[in-house]
Amino acid sequence: MEVNDINMQSDNCEPDRAAHPGIFLCREAGKSDHQPSGRCVDFPVSVVLPAGGSGERTGLQTPKQFCSFLGRPLISYTIQAFERVLWIQSIMVVVAKENMDLMTDIIQRFQHRKVRVVPGGSTRHRSICNGVLALGEEGEGTSAVERPKVVIIHDAVRPFVEEDFLYKIAMAAKEQGAAGAIRPLVSTVIATTSEGYLDHSLERAKYRASEMPQGFTYDVICQAYQRCSESDFEFGTECLHLALQYCGTNAKLIEGPPTLWKVTYKRDLAAAESIVKETLSRSACIITGGSTQAVTLADALQKAVGALDVELDVIPDLMGDNARYLLKEWNFIQVSVNTSCLSEVEAMLGALEAANRALLHPLVVIWVHFSSMDELSVSGRVAEPAAIMDLASTAKLRNILLYGIQLHQSKEAERWERSVLRVAEIASALIRDRSPALVGQLLQA
Amino acid sequence: MEVNDINMQSDNCEPDRAAHPGIFLCREAGKSDHQPSGRCVDFPVSVVLPAGGSGERTGLQTPKQFCSFLGRPLISYTIQAFERVLWIQSIMVVVAKENMDLMTDIIQRFQHRKVRVVPGGSTRHRSICNGVLALGEEGEGTSAVERPKVVIIHDAVRPFVEEDFLYKIAMAAKEQGAAGAIRPLVSTVIATTSEGYLDHSLERAKYRASEMPQGFTYDVICQAYQRCSESDFEFGTECLHLALQYCGTNAKLIEGPPTLWKVTYKRDLAAAESIVKETLSRSACIITGGSTQAVTLADALQKAVGALDVELDVIPDLMGDNARYLLKEWNFIQVSVNTSCLSEVEAMLGALEAANRALLHPLVVIWVHFSSMDELSVSGRVAEPAAIMDLASTAKLRNILLYGIQLHQSKEAERWERSVLRVAEIASALIRDRSPALVGQLLQA
Repeated sequence: MEVNDINMQSDNCEPDRAAHPGIFLCREAGKSDHQPSGRCVDFPVSVVLPAGGSGERTGLQTPKQFCSFLGRPLISYTIQAFERVLWIQSIMVVVAKENMDLMTDIIQRFQHRKVRVVPGGSTRHRSICNGVLALGEEGEGTSAVERPKVVIIHDAVRPFVEEDFLYKIAMAAKEQGAAGAIRPLVSTVIATTSEGYLDHSLERAKYRASEMPQGFTYDVICQAYQRCSESDFEFGTECLHLALQYCGTNAKLIEGPPTLWKVTYKRDLAAAESIVKETLSRSACIITGGSTQAVTLADALQKAVGALDVELDVIPDLMGDNARYLLKEWNFIQVSVNTSCLSEVEAMLGALEAANRALLHPLVVIWVHFSSMDELSVSGRVAEPAAIMDLASTAKLRNILLYGIQLHQSKEAERWERSVLRVAEIASALIRDRSPALVGQLLQA
Repeated sequence: MEVNDINMQSDNCEPDRAAHPGIFLCREAGKSDHQPSGRCVDFPVSVVLPAGGSGERTGLQTPKQFCSFLGRPLISYTIQAFERVLWIQSIMVVVAKENMDLMTDIIQRFQHRKVRVVPGGSTRHRSICNGVLALGEEGEGTSAVERPKVVIIHDAVRPFVEEDFLYKIAMAAKEQGAAGAIRPLVSTVIATTSEGYLDHSLERAKYRASEMPQGFTYDVICQAYQRCSESDFEFGTECLHLALQYCGTNAKLIEGPPTLWKVTYKRDLAAAESIVKETLSRSACIITGGSTQAVTLADALQKAVGALDVELDVIPDLMGDNARYLLKEWNFIQVSVNTSCLSEVEAMLGALEAANRALLHPLVVIWVHFSSMDELSVSGRVAEPAAIMDLASTAKLRNILLYGIQLHQSKEAERWERSVLRVAEIASALIRDRSPALVGQLLQA
């Protein structure tokens, strides 16, 4: 399964995380879905993120690292992947001069910390070299950041790198001087004659694709760039090769997961979006307000969405211990019975805004208006659509997507089951699609 | 731009296409969006489509060639890509024995023609060999299909292959005996030591990735499989290599477009879906019924959706010359002014069903209920939701997705513009997302 477990928890909710973690906090060991795996790294590690590419291959005008999905540019997802790793002390993003302002805006807007931006050079190697040198300067003088022992180099367009793998690379780099991710070759590699004919094909088993991230001790990567030629700077692409040629360092190669893949084409942006959406859509929490009817509905929904691959937690409210859902859940379903009053939803929106929860990912809030009267009250119906649309328009500005579903009690068992199933289907689709165009709609189940 | 122009026209609407085209019709030259490019191929060409893979890498239980998106399995998209090429006479799909029935069902359900299914062997080469041999048998005796001069081998999981490229491969194969698609390497290829360290990296410029499709004269591919060893059958993967080793044929290598990429991981299914959705969502046709108010609305919408990258054709009805839209458009917007009667939509659904238009892709029909009265009529509002939901439920069974949007005239210019923009946004989102869960909803603009 290549869909990795992105740690989707907003870092802003972790009070123990200082802007400069300084010395390499160790977290409790053991991996859980929403916690960094917390291995100990007792030396300073920093990251260079070259992001100077022009993105010709996506077929888009914007370089691909700045293309957005779910309202956020790709590079911000990649930065987030490093930022949540406690033992990484700083991230040096290298961008083309013309994108310095754009990059600074992105960092401010998504409240990234540990990040500095430096201008890139004319080639990939010159850009990485600029980043490495800037890390060295950072370590001098009064800065809280130390000169790194290990430098991890990654691509801005590989957003799904995981802490476990970064740990392996950092440890191997410290021991061996250099380490890099590899993947099996997907296609046979062939050598061509100058006339465009097959010369020979390579034996697949002997070769690997070199991927990112790679790690180097600061000394090795500095030395490699000091000693390498103009031609290396101009035409080279492989840092591991420089470490071998100029420092005699044979890099340790570590097989990485398929999630290390590089966003190259426009279709890859769709793939990346689908991975994030899937991760955000695995669970939801349904708030019943404690009413018996709402609890019955919630239980029925729980079964129905289970078949649709969404896990549903049923809770009476978001008070006390349940307030933790406000800090970890991406999807909320509020059931209101026989009242078209949106006050519970308003309160929830307020709490979510206060927690700054929707900074990195759009939150979904679904208001289920459950009317147990056989006939609907016409006056109620007319008032709600406008009210929920207004509330949704405001929430959308804060990256919270509010939708409504209207459901009528039926005494006919079959009809009732059909309605509950429809609520489940609609809610799942809203959670999965996260469509901004449909906010404020009151859908009929 | 890697999003290719899939020929989305339903082949069923081409009365000039016989089930067995027999001899290699030549169509008018010159490429257009909705026409095969129509180059002349004056020799028989058939296709072998190995589809025996287990799909371990997708992380899905179903082998990836049978995974569905937009209601249709991947392999059906690939078959369609070949089926619409007039000069391809037959397609031999090779599947694992346990999937023979499934494959036969797929062929019936999506009315594929020119296709036969044969059981695969235990390895890729054995499967391809079975397919090639079956093509030879097909050419014997009374069948309308000739023994092919050229055999094209492709992967079931590369659905976006284009006629132009198939033409290049077929012609080069006929001339040289063998031809294959290549792509530049995306990563540096490195050789590893047995201990997992870097040995050396290859100079990227000298090597290429071997991709599919490949083409061979029937004689070359038969001879290669007759002469090759058990070990080749067991461990080999590269047909070009067999042609070189056993027939002395140096394949001509042709650089293919990025759309030849192979659906390997679950994320690739999302990417493939996004490519098809984008192709289906480029244009829509809006039917005004001729009323002045509807035409004014349509013109305003035309501007608004233009900004959202949808092209909108405005027509009064689907009669006469305009009936052609029924055969080529994937999205219809029907405007009804001051009437909540769905008869126009019903008529359209009938025509679309009669044309068997939604066999291969879901069609979207949006009913825009435009009320020019300042106040909405409450009785009208209550009646429609049930009517459109019923109609939508029936249409969905035929792969037609019906949605409604309700819009009220406003004399306030600013408010009116906002409503029109909202209709455009909602309609674009419905067309792009093609969500089956939301059919029958009456959305508010």
